[in-house]
Amino acid sequence: MSRLYLDHNATTPLRAEARRAMIDALDVVGNPSSVHAEGRAAVALKEQARAKIATAFGAEEAEIVFTSGATEAAAMALAGRGLDCAGVEHDCVSAWCHPVLKADRSGRVAVNAPERTALQVANSETGVIQDLPLGIAVSDAVQAAGKIAWRFDQSGAQMAFISAHKFGGPKGIGALILRRGLEVAAFLKGGGQEMGRRAGTENLIAIAGFGAAAETAARDVTLGRWEEIAEFRNILETALEAGSDGLIFVGMDEERLPNTSCVITPGWEGATQVMQMDLAGYAVSAGSACSSGKVKTSAALRSMGFSASEAGQAMRVSLGLETTKEDVLRFADAWRVKRKRHGQRAA
Amino acid sequence: MSRLYLDHNATTPLRAEARRAMIDALDVVGNPSSVHAEGRAAVALKEQARAKIATAFGAEEAEIVFTSGATEAAAMALAGRGLDCAGVEHDCVSAWCHPVLKADRSGRVAVNAPERTALQVANSETGVIQDLPLGIAVSDAVQAAGKIAWRFDQSGAQMAFISAHKFGGPKGIGALILRRGLEVAAFLKGGGQEMGRRAGTENLIAIAGFGAAAETAARDVTLGRWEEIAEFRNILETALEAGSDGLIFVGMDEERLPNTSCVITPGWEGATQVMQMDLAGYAVSAGSACSSGKVKTSAALRSMGFSASEAGQAMRVSLGLETTKEDVLRFADAWRVKRKRHGQRAA
Repeated sequence: MSRLYLDHNATTPLRAEARRAMIDALDVVGNPSSVHAEGRAAVALKEQARAKIATAFGAEEAEIVFTSGATEAAAMALAGRGLDCAGVEHDCVSAWCHPVLKADRSGRVAVNAPERTALQVANSETGVIQDLPLGIAVSDAVQAAGKIAWRFDQSGAQMAFISAHKFGGPKGIGALILRRGLEVAAFLKGGGQEMGRRAGTENLIAIAGFGAAAETAARDVTLGRWEEIAEFRNILETALEAGSDGLIFVGMDEERLPNTSCVITPGWEGATQVMQMDLAGYAVSAGSACSSGKVKTSAALRSMGFSASEAGQAMRVSLGLETTKEDVLRFADAWRVKRKRHGQRAA
Repeated sequence: MSRLYLDHNATTPLRAEARRAMIDALDVVGNPSSVHAEGRAAVALKEQARAKIATAFGAEEAEIVFTSGATEAAAMALAGRGLDCAGVEHDCVSAWCHPVLKADRSGRVAVNAPERTALQVANSETGVIQDLPLGIAVSDAVQAAGKIAWRFDQSGAQMAFISAHKFGGPKGIGALILRRGLEVAAFLKGGGQEMGRRAGTENLIAIAGFGAAAETAARDVTLGRWEEIAEFRNILETALEAGSDGLIFVGMDEERLPNTSCVITPGWEGATQVMQMDLAGYAVSAGSACSSGKVKTSAALRSMGFSASEAGQAMRVSLGLETTKEDVLRFADAWRVKRKRHGQRAA
């Protein structure tokens, strides 16, 4: 039986359209900074992608700055500003902010001063969607973009950022989106690229993939393709619950991303679940993964009021557009078998 | 007649090996930060590329930090340090440095205090190669890597940086190389990637291309494939000179990159040459290009003591490994025709 990948919030496979756009871009020779025909062709490719992203996510082209990903975009938007945030934010946000805001047990954050607050659209671990107050200074739209109908121009945020590889583009490319009239200090200096906002030769192949992925991801949202996935996620949760006492589905009563389930299983470490499921052929994640290859306890769940041991017992299952009902049932079956064995050993 | 691309110092086409490696990497699903099998496969791909780059350029794997390109690597190496540099450095270096050092008319820079100096290995506009004193703090190896036998471990530099797209890898990926024991403050925060030196999900597809390009570029240097290109460059210069009075070949008496020619033509603007040659089907550049699509006068040539009008009359021709003798002769013929017409109009 082939492996089943259910960790789409960590990264999701390239969409066919992005793959094709990237292969085409492999043969584009020029540097967008060159004035000759080859350079202009490279500029055209880049700007076509920017236009697709602008259309997909409700921004003007001039509001979009290509970056090497969400982490860089977050740094550009947040460095030196000392904004407030809650503990549910991704590390690339909280690294620059004061984590003074509270989240409730459902993951919802109460904001006092939007203009000095960073607030995510949706959480990567729980899928919980925030009700963004108007005028939020910076909003992490990484997990929302391409899964729900998020649009920058309707979000009320001053700045937002997205990452291509979360919706079927390549890793290593993202964008800062900043409302017309706003500026950020260039983090990278030494060239006039991106209207002086971000120096450095553009990642053209990835940008091509980003544009194609944005276009098709937005189309899929409009087509309602995620509604079925939400059903499968609900089927998954029902199936996991059957025969397992005391599970907590985090944020279940809130509006959530259609593909995300975060489940706390009393007495069974999330890290252990991930490893056991991996051996059984399933890719899921614990509350949070860091790049050292070790799993750390979820800061997001802790900030929502879950105990350290509860946070340590979280598993995230995140579905993709190609995930089927059979997939989630197969996973739930395998998980229940492991759960039972674990319970017997622990008993 | 097909177009002829002679602007390889701006960017050079993807090598076949890099192209293949990237196409293979399109189908690698995982995020290197994930602990499951898919994540580990992504890590393996990344580390294979790192090993190839380390071998190609004489570094240890732990000394290599992947970045979004040379501009980011330069920022990491230079920000906040206030190093000295000369006016021949690329803007991504001089943006962070004090441009107090002098270059002579051949482009050579005299260094007093290597430990507080940034000095490039070779210049992008003239190809002039510096004799790096031991202990240079930061060295821009972007134009040298893959064209001459530059090795980090023999360069005497504390830190250096390279960019994949200058030797047949993709745009948007590069590396900071820093001698074992040195550290830099992370510019991008919020994840433990690159041993805590550079947060953000890795640009896996580009990294795969980077590794393959580094391996084959170093092999081509070892095989002496650039020696023939140097001959063609010399043939080009002889052919340009025939029938044109007063040309200055910048740095001609110095050791230069094998592929680079910078020629000043009295009375003919570099920007005009670039445009006229572009219309005739040839891609070359003026002394320097900025991303606004306008050509600015070369700061490098100015710092070498050329007048503003001389610097404004510079054209750079940079050959690639696939450039032939016929190519350079065809270009020289076309250039001489334009030169003659320009001279007649100007007269």
